[in-house]
Formats: sequence, C-alpha cells, structure tokens
Amino acid sequence: MPKLDLDAFPLTNRTGYPAPYSADVAGRRYRRLGPGAGLEDFGVTHVTLEPGAWSSQRHWHEGEDEFVVMLSGEAVLVEEGSRVVMRAGDCAAFPKGKANAHHLVNEGERPCVFIAIGRPAASACHYPDIDLYLDGATQRYAHRDGTPY
Amino acid sequence: MPKLDLDAFPLTNRTGYPAPYSADVAGRRYRRLGPGAGLEDFGVTHVTLEPGAWSSQRHWHEGEDEFVVMLSGEAVLVEEGSRVVMRAGDCAAFPKGKANAHHLVNEGERPCVFIAIGRPAASACHYPDIDLYLDGATQRYAHRDGTPY
Repeated sequence: MPKLDLDAFPLTNRTGYPAPYSADVAGRRYRRLGPGAGLEDFGVTHVTLEPGAWSSQRHWHEGEDEFVVMLSGEAVLVEEGSRVVMRAGDCAAFPKGKANAHHLVNEGERPCVFIAIGRPAASACHYPDIDLYLDGATQRYAHRDGTPY
Repeated sequence: MPKLDLDAFPLTNRTGYPAPYSADVAGRRYRRLGPGAGLEDFGVTHVTLEPGAWSSQRHWHEGEDEFVVMLSGEAVLVEEGSRVVMRAGDCAAFPKGKANAHHLVNEGERPCVFIAIGRPAASACHYPDIDLYLDGATQRYAHRDGTPY
C-alpha cells in the first residue's frame, strides 16, 4: 500500500547534538519515512515542532541538498540575515554548498508540521552560531577546533 | 532566499504522452521547483490537478523512487487493485522496481495540490492499462511492441 500510515512509523526526538545544543531540539518529534517505505533515492522525514522547538541548529551542508514543505501550523525560517514565516503549503529549498545557514523555529503556541527531503549526510556541516562542526569524513560532531565532544 | 516564491516558477501542463493519452493530464498544471531553486540531488514538482485531471497515466518506474505529499484538496490514489483517498497531509511512497502501477485522480469538484519528489527519469516505465511504454535507454514513448508513436 503506497499510502503511508504515518502512525506506524517510529516517532523519536533523538538527536546527535551534544549538550547544550541538544536542548533546542528536544521538542522536535520526527518520523523517518524513507527506509520503512522502501525508498532509497532520497530521505523523507515527517517532523512536528512543539512550541519553542527548533528543527535543528542553524546550519548548512557542504554536499547535500535539502527541501522543506510546510503541512500545518507556522514556523519562522531563520537564515543568514533574515527571517520569514512559513505556513501550510510554503516551500523552501537549501542547495548544497551554499553558505546560508538556516533552520525553522516554532515561535507560536501550537505545533507545526513539515516534510523535509534530503540525502544521507556524507559531507561536512557548518553551524555558524555555535561551537559545533560535523566532520564530513567521520560524520561525528566536534568543536570547531576539531576537539571531540 | 530559500523560501520559494511559487508564482515565480513557470507553470505548464506540458506532457510527453502521445494522443489520446495526453488528454487525461490536460488539467494537470505543474511547476518544476528543483532546478530553479538550485537543487540537484532530487526533483521537486508542485502539482495542481483540476477536477477530472490525472497526475499521470497509471505507471510504475523500474529505476526511480517517487514520493507524494498532499497539500490541499483531495485525490484518489489508484494502484493495483485498490483505491484510497489522499487528503492534506497524507503521504505516499512508490519504491522503484515495484510493479504496483499508480496515479492520482481528482474525482472532486475543486482543485487539489500536491508535491511530488523523484529523480530524473533514466529507466523504463510501464503503463499496464494502455498501449504505452517508456524506453529506459532512449526515454522515448513507444507502443508496447516497440513501434514509435
């Protein structure tokens, strides 16, 4: 059955971020749909942000495109030097290698829901606001100077 | 600006289907978002089906995954031996190589809108209901016996 029973996919708020950066995404609950649905060409994640939650730390990937479409509620898309509200039906694209760090923040009082499309992470990821860096080769988080967490 | 101004993307109802199969998708209006937004890893298409329109002829791809999320309105997802209604927020996945031909049909009285994710077509596509075949090597439509249209 191609139509997905979303409730059948495991729901998690897991993150690989070290403390204290993990706290900002504690209210991010998500389901990875791709593998369970049999998809290999791209990843699909169904995300709910509780009020106050962030989609991620503000970041940009060297080697993976990302795409987001809002399904319900509102979030603020924060990028380099600007903020814009995203509502149901709004789309945003984040081409790889473009140093425009971004994330979604739920500043409202109700949950918001979006779909994120991407590829498995295999490159470095940059976090300009904080002392965090994702190494491209190891896919491990480190301080900016390379010291492990 | 990562948030996309959808109206800035060209809107078309173009199809490569030969007559008479082209008529079923005449009311399918779509915008390809990927290239204009700078995305290379996957394709993103924003589709509106007018009442009566089909998303495609019922088909399955040998080599490309597909994913659909409904944004507004309703469509009937027709697959092998079953029909199910898709509403805003519903998701469907179509793994490559799985011979479960599918399409969306707007049987309602209002337009419906969805996002389709995929990869550039590079494999054969099968249309079990009609005398149509997409050759994998040439990416040209033919009769099932190989005769060109």
